[in-house]
Amino acid sequence: MNFNDVKKEVIQFTADRNWDQFHSPENLAKSIVIEAAELLECFQWSNSEYDINAVKEELADVMNYCIQMADKLDIDIEDCILEKIKKNAEKYPVEKSFGSSKKYTEL
Amino acid sequence: MNFNDVKKEVIQFTADRNWDQFHSPENLAKSIVIEAAELLECFQWSNSEYDINAVKEELADVMNYCIQMADKLDIDIEDCILEKIKKNAEKYPVEKSFGSSKKYTEL
Amino acid sequence: MNFNDVKKEVIQFTADRNWDQFHSPENLAKSIVIEAAELLECFQWSNSEYDINAVKEELADVMNYCIQMADKLDIDIEDCILEKIKKNAEKYPVEKSFGSSKKYTEL
Amino acid sequence: MNFNDVKKEVIQFTADRNWDQFHSPENLAKSIVIEAAELLECFQWSNSEYDINAVKEELADVMNYCIQMADKLDIDIEDCILEKIKKNAEKYPVEKSFGSSKKYTEL
Repeated sequence: MNFNDVKKEVIQFTADRNWDQFHSPENLAKSIVIEAAELLECFQWSNSEYDINAVKEELADVMNYCIQMADKLDIDIEDCILEKIKKNAEKYPVEKSFGSSKKYTEL
Repeated sequence: MNFNDVKKEVIQFTADRNWDQFHSPENLAKSIVIEAAELLECFQWSNSEYDINAVKEELADVMNYCIQMADKLDIDIEDCILEKIKKNAEKYPVEKSFGSSKKYTEL
Repeated sequence: MNFNDVKKEVIQFTADRNWDQFHSPENLAKSIVIEAAELLECFQWSNSEYDINAVKEELADVMNYCIQMADKLDIDIEDCILEKIKKNAEKYPVEKSFGSSKKYTEL
Repeated sequence: MNFNDVKKEVIQFTADRNWDQFHSPENLAKSIVIEAAELLECFQWSNSEYDINAVKEELADVMNYCIQMADKLDIDIEDCILEKIKKNAEKYPVEKSFGSSKKYTEL
């Protein structure tokens, strides 16, 4: 199934349960960070041992809420990622940032 | 541009800068929650007034790191979202969860 | 200065600026996680190199908002930490949890 | 019990279980944001209805890990909060920030 169909499934799941009423942009933002922290919990005490199935499930939850936020605010996911990459490319030109983890303010 | 091409752009951006060395699954998990919190910051003091451009940028950052984590761990994004929806459908059957924001443990 | 006096300073700072109106428990919860993510950002790409002054500032921000939430909800900070330790001691008895990072559900 | 004694209890709890080995500053930073997100979960779908006991427990967990991080890095909690308040007072002078939730960069 391609990403567009996955988006439809995500939106349908919420519609079927009449959950749209709870999904204000603010509540979705809270939900994204809550799920992101559950994803981080997979790596809480170790950076090398983790349950890949748990990682998959938490990553799915993060992206599920991202899709819902995009839908709610009429954001085109593909476009907004590409636009941000362009902006990041200006902040982090290859010749300055190659092999460096420094923030652009310190480059 | 479709999502598969966007994924390629994201991965290429990192490869061009030789940043793969910093992108352990753990570091990506940290990055996802850091960006998710920046997204939440758009709604820190108000649930109704927010800068839609800032929201777009932060949402893009969250998804950018999600794409990188999926790539790093050979996770199929579309599949893992669909599988999680199936699991959620069992936890939240329509007849029990319709119009309710309760957690499945309380349904 | 002892902790009780620090708490008074934190509350006074907010009162002086008439910021109490923004400090609903929910907004404070958002603020705590936003500051906690800024603290994590000090360790985003490395677990061993960090700017101790940045860590101090972000840790202070987290605790500042914790103090404000406790004040807002009439929570006694000292009591609630002690009570949670007692509860944790039941979940994590020394003989079972000694030297283990496992969650209590897996002990 | 005063805050200094509470700090000792927190440190003793960890020492009794030989958990110090897991408590690198980075792991503590991850733990603080994980617990902060659990605190936010109390307010995920509503800003007005919340379980005060759950809030107390999650707030306690956040502060517990803050105390451990301060201990690990020899940070004086009281001092660092006061120093940050001073810095914030410069960023947010009363006459400019009274009754405003704007960030200092926008004042």
